[in-house]
Amino acid sequence: MMPPYEEGGLLSPGWAGSQGAAATSDLAYLQALLDAESALTRAQSAVGDVPSTAAEAVTAAARADAFDVQALTLRARAAGNPVLALVSELKASVAQEHRAFVHRGATSQDIVDTATMLVAARCLDLVLADLARSEVALARLAATHRDTVMAGRTLTQHAVPTTFGLKAAGWRSLVLDARDRVQTVRSALPAQLGGAAGTLAALGGNPELVAAFARETGLAEPPLPWHTLRTPIADLAGALAFTAGALGKAAADVLTLSRTEIAEVAEGAGGGSSAMPHKANPVRATLIAAAARQAPALASILYGSLVAEDERPPGAWHAEWQPLRELLRAVAGAAENAAELFPALHIDTDAMRRNLDRTDGLIVSERLTAELGAIVGRDRAKQLLTTLAGRVREGEGTLPQLLAEHPSFATLPLDALTDPAGYTGAAGLLTDRALERP
Amino acid sequence: MMPPYEEGGLLSPGWAGSQGAAATSDLAYLQALLDAESALTRAQSAVGDVPSTAAEAVTAAARADAFDVQALTLRARAAGNPVLALVSELKASVAQEHRAFVHRGATSQDIVDTATMLVAARCLDLVLADLARSEVALARLAATHRDTVMAGRTLTQHAVPTTFGLKAAGWRSLVLDARDRVQTVRSALPAQLGGAAGTLAALGGNPELVAAFARETGLAEPPLPWHTLRTPIADLAGALAFTAGALGKAAADVLTLSRTEIAEVAEGAGGGSSAMPHKANPVRATLIAAAARQAPALASILYGSLVAEDERPPGAWHAEWQPLRELLRAVAGAAENAAELFPALHIDTDAMRRNLDRTDGLIVSERLTAELGAIVGRDRAKQLLTTLAGRVREGEGTLPQLLAEHPSFATLPLDALTDPAGYTGAAGLLTDRALERP
Amino acid sequence: MMPPYEEGGLLSPGWAGSQGAAATSDLAYLQALLDAESALTRAQSAVGDVPSTAAEAVTAAARADAFDVQALTLRARAAGNPVLALVSELKASVAQEHRAFVHRGATSQDIVDTATMLVAARCLDLVLADLARSEVALARLAATHRDTVMAGRTLTQHAVPTTFGLKAAGWRSLVLDARDRVQTVRSALPAQLGGAAGTLAALGGNPELVAAFARETGLAEPPLPWHTLRTPIADLAGALAFTAGALGKAAADVLTLSRTEIAEVAEGAGGGSSAMPHKANPVRATLIAAAARQAPALASILYGSLVAEDERPPGAWHAEWQPLRELLRAVAGAAENAAELFPALHIDTDAMRRNLDRTDGLIVSERLTAELGAIVGRDRAKQLLTTLAGRVREGEGTLPQLLAEHPSFATLPLDALTDPAGYTGAAGLLTDRALERP
Amino acid sequence: MMPPYEEGGLLSPGWAGSQGAAATSDLAYLQALLDAESALTRAQSAVGDVPSTAAEAVTAAARADAFDVQALTLRARAAGNPVLALVSELKASVAQEHRAFVHRGATSQDIVDTATMLVAARCLDLVLADLARSEVALARLAATHRDTVMAGRTLTQHAVPTTFGLKAAGWRSLVLDARDRVQTVRSALPAQLGGAAGTLAALGGNPELVAAFARETGLAEPPLPWHTLRTPIADLAGALAFTAGALGKAAADVLTLSRTEIAEVAEGAGGGSSAMPHKANPVRATLIAAAARQAPALASILYGSLVAEDERPPGAWHAEWQPLRELLRAVAGAAENAAELFPALHIDTDAMRRNLDRTDGLIVSERLTAELGAIVGRDRAKQLLTTLAGRVREGEGTLPQLLAEHPSFATLPLDALTDPAGYTGAAGLLTDRALERP
Repeated sequence: MMPPYEEGGLLSPGWAGSQGAAATSDLAYLQALLDAESALTRAQSAVGDVPSTAAEAVTAAARADAFDVQALTLRARAAGNPVLALVSELKASVAQEHRAFVHRGATSQDIVDTATMLVAARCLDLVLADLARSEVALARLAATHRDTVMAGRTLTQHAVPTTFGLKAAGWRSLVLDARDRVQTVRSALPAQLGGAAGTLAALGGNPELVAAFARETGLAEPPLPWHTLRTPIADLAGALAFTAGALGKAAADVLTLSRTEIAEVAEGAGGGSSAMPHKANPVRATLIAAAARQAPALASILYGSLVAEDERPPGAWHAEWQPLRELLRAVAGAAENAAELFPALHIDTDAMRRNLDRTDGLIVSERLTAELGAIVGRDRAKQLLTTLAGRVREGEGTLPQLLAEHPSFATLPLDALTDPAGYTGAAGLLTDRALERP
Repeated sequence: MMPPYEEGGLLSPGWAGSQGAAATSDLAYLQALLDAESALTRAQSAVGDVPSTAAEAVTAAARADAFDVQALTLRARAAGNPVLALVSELKASVAQEHRAFVHRGATSQDIVDTATMLVAARCLDLVLADLARSEVALARLAATHRDTVMAGRTLTQHAVPTTFGLKAAGWRSLVLDARDRVQTVRSALPAQLGGAAGTLAALGGNPELVAAFARETGLAEPPLPWHTLRTPIADLAGALAFTAGALGKAAADVLTLSRTEIAEVAEGAGGGSSAMPHKANPVRATLIAAAARQAPALASILYGSLVAEDERPPGAWHAEWQPLRELLRAVAGAAENAAELFPALHIDTDAMRRNLDRTDGLIVSERLTAELGAIVGRDRAKQLLTTLAGRVREGEGTLPQLLAEHPSFATLPLDALTDPAGYTGAAGLLTDRALERP
Repeated sequence: MMPPYEEGGLLSPGWAGSQGAAATSDLAYLQALLDAESALTRAQSAVGDVPSTAAEAVTAAARADAFDVQALTLRARAAGNPVLALVSELKASVAQEHRAFVHRGATSQDIVDTATMLVAARCLDLVLADLARSEVALARLAATHRDTVMAGRTLTQHAVPTTFGLKAAGWRSLVLDARDRVQTVRSALPAQLGGAAGTLAALGGNPELVAAFARETGLAEPPLPWHTLRTPIADLAGALAFTAGALGKAAADVLTLSRTEIAEVAEGAGGGSSAMPHKANPVRATLIAAAARQAPALASILYGSLVAEDERPPGAWHAEWQPLRELLRAVAGAAENAAELFPALHIDTDAMRRNLDRTDGLIVSERLTAELGAIVGRDRAKQLLTTLAGRVREGEGTLPQLLAEHPSFATLPLDALTDPAGYTGAAGLLTDRALERP
Repeated sequence: MMPPYEEGGLLSPGWAGSQGAAATSDLAYLQALLDAESALTRAQSAVGDVPSTAAEAVTAAARADAFDVQALTLRARAAGNPVLALVSELKASVAQEHRAFVHRGATSQDIVDTATMLVAARCLDLVLADLARSEVALARLAATHRDTVMAGRTLTQHAVPTTFGLKAAGWRSLVLDARDRVQTVRSALPAQLGGAAGTLAALGGNPELVAAFARETGLAEPPLPWHTLRTPIADLAGALAFTAGALGKAAADVLTLSRTEIAEVAEGAGGGSSAMPHKANPVRATLIAAAARQAPALASILYGSLVAEDERPPGAWHAEWQPLRELLRAVAGAAENAAELFPALHIDTDAMRRNLDRTDGLIVSERLTAELGAIVGRDRAKQLLTTLAGRVREGEGTLPQLLAEHPSFATLPLDALTDPAGYTGAAGLLTDRALERP
C-alpha cells in the first residue's frame, strides 16, 4: 500500500503528517498528472476530436492507486520527466481501441504544468482554510486584549507601552494580507495546453479546446500557452513566500514573548524535552519560524525560472518542480501549525504588567519629555530625563520618585503621567478599526 | 556639487546614468526623508497641532541640496539610521520658534519608511513608463511578424515550427503582467506614521493625522502603522522580482537568437569589443540578463524581513534598505534597457527560414507522425520516422526525399506536409488574441 | 517493505533512483540516528560509564528496518524532532536492564547533528566517486581534443578560436576544484556531543567521551560542541553549492554546443520526446542545469542558519534539515548524471570546423588587427577591418578575399593568417599544464 | 574632489564611512582597473614584449584621481563594462609613442577580473585585521568569564546552566573559523590574463607572461585563465557569507542578552533614540545582524554565476560585480562593527546570576532527574520532577523547598545539587581548550 504522504517528512516535523503533505505527495502529483490526461481526453471529446467512450475509458483508468509510482519515478529519469512513462502505462490500462486517444497532440509540459496547478490549487485551499482558522482566533485575541497594556519593544529595548490587542490585530492583518494574496493567485491558476511549442498545431490548432480543457480541470483558461511565460509559478512563489513571512512574524513574536525572562505568552501545549522535565518548548512557533526561514530562498528559485528561454528551457523548468513542492508543503504546514497555535495561545496579562514595571517608569520617558518640556523646554527636559534614566538604572529610585524631588514638577500628576496604561495612544482605536476588516 | 547619481555605478552599467539611478541615489533618498518631515509638519498643521507658519518654514527648508549628505551619512552610524542627525540639521535650518515643530511625535522609522515609499513610487513610475514603451514596440513586432515562421526550440533542439509573432506576443504578455503587478503595488504604497511603537501616543493618538499625512505625501493611507507589518516591502519585492524575470525571459531569447550560428535577431546597436573589430555584442540583453540574475536573491532578503519581531526588529528592518534600493535600480535599469532594445531589434526573417531548413524536414516529424499514422498506424509511423530521422542526420537525404521512396505515401502531398510554414497551428490566432489585451 | 528511497523523487528525475537518493532517504536518516545512539552507548562503555553488554544490546537493536519510520515521523511533530520518539522505541527494543543506558546524558541535538554528519559523509563519498569518474572522462576528452580547434564564443558571438581540449580541461579543473572542496569538508565532518547546553554536564563533564564518540561514529572530533557554532553545516553548503555550479558550467556548455544550429556535441543517449520522433534531448545536461539552479538558494538557507542564537535556536536549526537533504541529493544526482554524461559525450569535430567558417574569416579579426597594424598602424587597421567586417556580413566575400584586394597586404600570407587553426595561442600548452594537476 | 567612499552609504550605516567602504568605492575600483593595466605593461616589459619606458609611462599615468570616474561610468553603458572607455582615456594620458602598449593583447575581462581580485584582496586584509581585533577581545572575555555561570537557553527556554566564558569561547571559535576561511581565499586570489577567449593568442601565447603579470599585481598565478572557471568568485562568496554568519551568531546572542528583561550584556556605547531619552540601543549588534541577513542571498548570486557558459557569458559575469561589492563592504562593515562591539561589551554578572534563579531551581532539573533517579528510578524521578515543576510554576515554592518535603531525598545535599554553579559540566575545560587554538 502506498502511504498517504509518500515524501516521508522525518526531517520536516513542520509538515509531516499534515494535510498539505498529503496534498503534495508523489501520489498526489501522480493523481494530478492522471487528472490532466483524463481531462484532456474529455475536452477533446467535448469538441468532437475524440469519441466519448475513449474519454470515459481514460477517465476510469486514471486512478493513481492503479499505477506503480515507484516504477514510474525510475523511468522518468530517461526522458527527464514522468509523462512519457506514464502515458505508456495509461495506454496499457485502457482497451486497445482507446489507446490512440491518450495524450493525443499534447506535450509532456502540458501535463506536468496542469498537474502542478491542480496540486497547487488543492494545497492552497488547505492553506486558505487554515488561514481562516487563524484569523478567527486572532480576532478573538485582539478583541479580548484590546486594552491589555504591555511593553512595546524596539531594537530589543522597552520603548513605550502598547497593547496586546494591537499586536494581535497586526498579526491578523498580516494573515488577511496573506489570505488576499493566496486567494488572488488561487483563482487564477491556469490549465496548460499548447503542444510541443505552444502553437496547438497537433491539437487541431483549436483554442476552443483549451477552454474546454480548462473547464474539465476546474482551472482558469490561460490567455496564452504559458510554457515559457511562467507568471503562474512566479505568482505562487510570491504568495507563498508572503504567507510564510506573515506567519513567521507572529511566530517570532510568540518566541520572544515566550522567553523564560519575559513569559508573557505560552503555547497551549509546548513540546517536551528528552532530558529536562521542566521544559515546555514553543514548538509550533519554532516550526513556523523554520518554514519562514526556508520560503524566501525557495521562492527565489521560482522567480529565477521566469527566465525560460526558447519554447522550453533546459533546466529552468525542471528546477521549478521540487522547490515549488517544498514551498507548498512548508507553507501548508506553517498554516496548519499557526491554526493550532493561535487558538491555544496562553496570555499572561500579569506578566505583561510586571514587565512594564521593569524599567521603573522609564518606559514613559517619551511622554515625560513632552510634558516636562512644556514646562522647562524640550531640550532641558530631554537632558534631565537622560540623567534621571541613568540614576534609575543605577538603582537610585523609580522615575516618579526621582522626579518628585524636582519642585518645578510638583504640580504634575506624576503617578498618572508615569502609568504605562495611560500612554497607549490610539492603540484601542487602531485595534477596533483593524478588526472591521473582513 | 552633488552629482545626480551619487551611487556611481561603475560596476553597474545596467543602471549607471539611468533615470532609475537618479531616482534612487543618496540625494534622492535624502530629499524623500525631507519630504516626509515636511509632510508631517503640514499634516500636523492641517489637523491643528502645529502653526501653519512652522509648516511653511519646514517645507521651505526641506531641500536636499541644502544639506551635506556625506556628513549625514557618517553621522547615521551612531544611531543606526540617518534620521536623528537629519532632524538636528533640519531644526538648525529653520528659525528658533519653528524648531519644536520639526519631527514632533514621530519616530525615525516613520520618516525612513515613508521616504522609502516615496522613492519607490518615483522609481516605479519610471519603470511603468519604460514598460509602456516596451509594450508598444513588442505589439508592433508581434503584429508585423504574425506569420513569420521560425523554429520552435525545446530543450535546445528544434521541435516544431512557431512564429516570431507568437514569441513577441508572449514577451509582451509578460511585460503586461509585470505592468499590472507593478501598478497594483505602486498605487497601494502607504505612508508610515505611528510613533515609537505604532500607537500614535506622541502624535495625539489621532488617526486623522495619519490620513492627513498620507494626503500630504501623496501616498496611500495605511490601515495600520506597518512598522513590523512589512506587506508593502514584500509586495515591492514580488513585483520587482517579477519584472526582472519577465524582461529576463525576453533577453534570454534575444541572446539565444543572436548567437552567431542562429543570427535570427540582432540588437540595433550592439556593443563593441576592445580587441575584435567584427564583434557586435548584444549588450542591452546582456545587462537585462544580469539584472534578472540578481533580482530573485535581493527579493528573498526582503521577503525574509517580513519576520520582524517586536515593535521594531534589530536587523530585519535595517536589512531592507540597501537590497530594496539595489532591486529598484536594477529593475529600473533593466526596464530602460528593454525599452531601448525592443524598438531597435533587428529581425532577420531569412535567417529564420534558413534555420527551419537545418533539419531537412525533421522539424515537422510530429505532423508526419500523425499523417502517416492515419495510414499505417501511429506506432509504425513513429518507428519509421525515427529510422528516417537517423538517415537524414547521416546525410542520406531530406525527409521529403526519403519519404517519397515509400509507395504507401505516394498519394500524400509531401511537399506541403513538410513545409514548416504549414504547421504553425493556432500561432496566428493566439497572437491576435494576445494583442487584444490592453 | 520500506522502499530504498522513501523520498520518492517523482518530481526530481535529477536524483530519483540514484545512490544519493538512497543515501539521504528517511530510512537512511533513521539508520544514521540509530547509529548515533549506538555509537554513544559504545563510547560510554569505552570510557567506563556503561556496561559493555548494554552497548552490545543497543548496537544490535539499532537497525532501521526494525522501526516504523512512518510512525516515528508522525510522532516527531510534538517535540519538533524525531529523537524523543525514537529513544522511546529504541528503549522498548532492548531488554529492561539496558534501557537506562539508551541516550544517557545526551540531548536530541547530539543525535540529530551526528546523524546529519553521517548521512552527509556517506553522500559525499558517493559524490567524490562520481567526480572521480567525471575527472577521468574529462582528462581523456581534453587529451584527445588537445588540438581540436573550435570557435571561442563571448557574449554569444564568435570571438577568436580556441580548442575543445582547453574547454574540457577547464571543465576538469572545475571538477577538481569541487573534489578538493568536498574532500576538505568531508574529512572534517564532526560528531556532535554536548548535552542540553553543550557543557557535557549530564555526560560526566568528560571531554574524553567526545573523543570516544567520534571514534565510534567514524567522524572527526569537534574542538567544541557545535550546537550553535554551525561551521560544519555552512561548509557543507559552500562545498555543495560549488560542486553544483562547477558541474553546471560544463552542463551549460554542453547545452549550448548541443543546439541544433551548433551541434558540436551531443549526449551519447539523448532523451526521447513523447511526440517528436526526431528529437534527442540533452537530458543529463538539463538535469544538471536544474540542480545548479537550485543549489545556491538552498545553500543560502544554510548560511543563514549560522545565526543560531542561544544554546539552541528556535527555527534556525530546524530550517537546516530539509534544505541540506535537498542540497545533498541534488548534488549527488548531478554528480551521477555528470559521470554518465562526460564519458559518453559525442564530439563532432567536423561541426566545430564548419562553425569556425561561419564568419568567413572574421573570427581571426583580432589577429589581423595586430598583423595589419604592424604595416598600416593599429588604428587604421582596426578601422579597415571594421569596414571589411561589414562587407563580409553583407555577403560581398570572405575576409581573405576582401583583404587580397589591398595591395599593401599582398606580401602577407593571408591564407595562413586567416586560418583559425593557426590562432589558438597557448591553448595546447595550457591544456597540457592543466592535465598535470592530479 | 572625489569623496573617499563614493558609494555613499546613506542607507547602509553598517558600512558607511568604514575602511571597507573606501576600499570598495568606485574610486577604489577605478584604481584597481588602472593597477591591472599598468601591471600588464610592466609584465610585458619584463618578458621583453614592451619597452620599459612605456611600462614606466603607463604606471605613472595610472592614478585614479587623474580620471573622471563619473564620465567613465556613463561611457561604460555602451560596451557593458568600463574598460573600453578607460583604455581610451589611459592612452590619451600617455605620450603618443607609448599608446600602442596600453592594454596590448588583453581583453576587458582580464582587467575587470584582476581589478576585482585586487579590490577583494585589499578589502579582505581589512576584514582580517578586524577579525584579529575581535579575537583578542573575545579571548579576554572568555578567560575573564571562564567561571561566570549563566542560564543556557534552548528554544527560548532556560535549559541547564552554562558559562559566559564558554559562550564567548564559542564566538571566538567562529571568528577563527572565519579568519581561516578568509585567509585561505585571500592568499589564493589570482590574477586574470588570457585574452579574448583565454588562449593568450594575442598575448604571444606565452604563459610566462601570466606569471609575470601575477607578480606585478601581487596576486596568485592562476593555473588556467578563469574567464569562465569562476572558482575565485565562488570561494569569496563562501568565505564572506561564512564571516557574516559567524559574526551574526555573536550579534544575535548580544541582542538577546541585551533585552530589557534579560540585560546580561550591554553595548558599551548604545545608540540613542530620537524620542526616548532612556534608550540605549544595541546598534553595533543590530547592524551586524542586518549584514548577516543580506550576505547569504548575495552569496547565492555569486554561486549562481559559476554557471558561466562559453568563453564569456552574457549576464552571469556582469551579475557578479555589484553583489560582490555589496558583500565585501557588508562583511567589512560587520567586521569593523564587531571589532568595536566586543572590546566594549559590558557584562553584568549579577544579572546572569539573578536570571539563573528565575526558575526557582528548575534549571537543574536534568541533574536532579539523574540524582533522584539513582534512588527511585529514572522514570519515577522524571515523573516526580514534572509534577514539581508544575507546582514551582504555580508559585508553591522553589524546587529545593518542594524536594525537601520528600523524606526519600532527605539525605541528599539539595542546596548543593540545586546550585546552578555546581552544574556546568566541562564548561571550564572546554573554554580552556578552545582558548589554546591560536
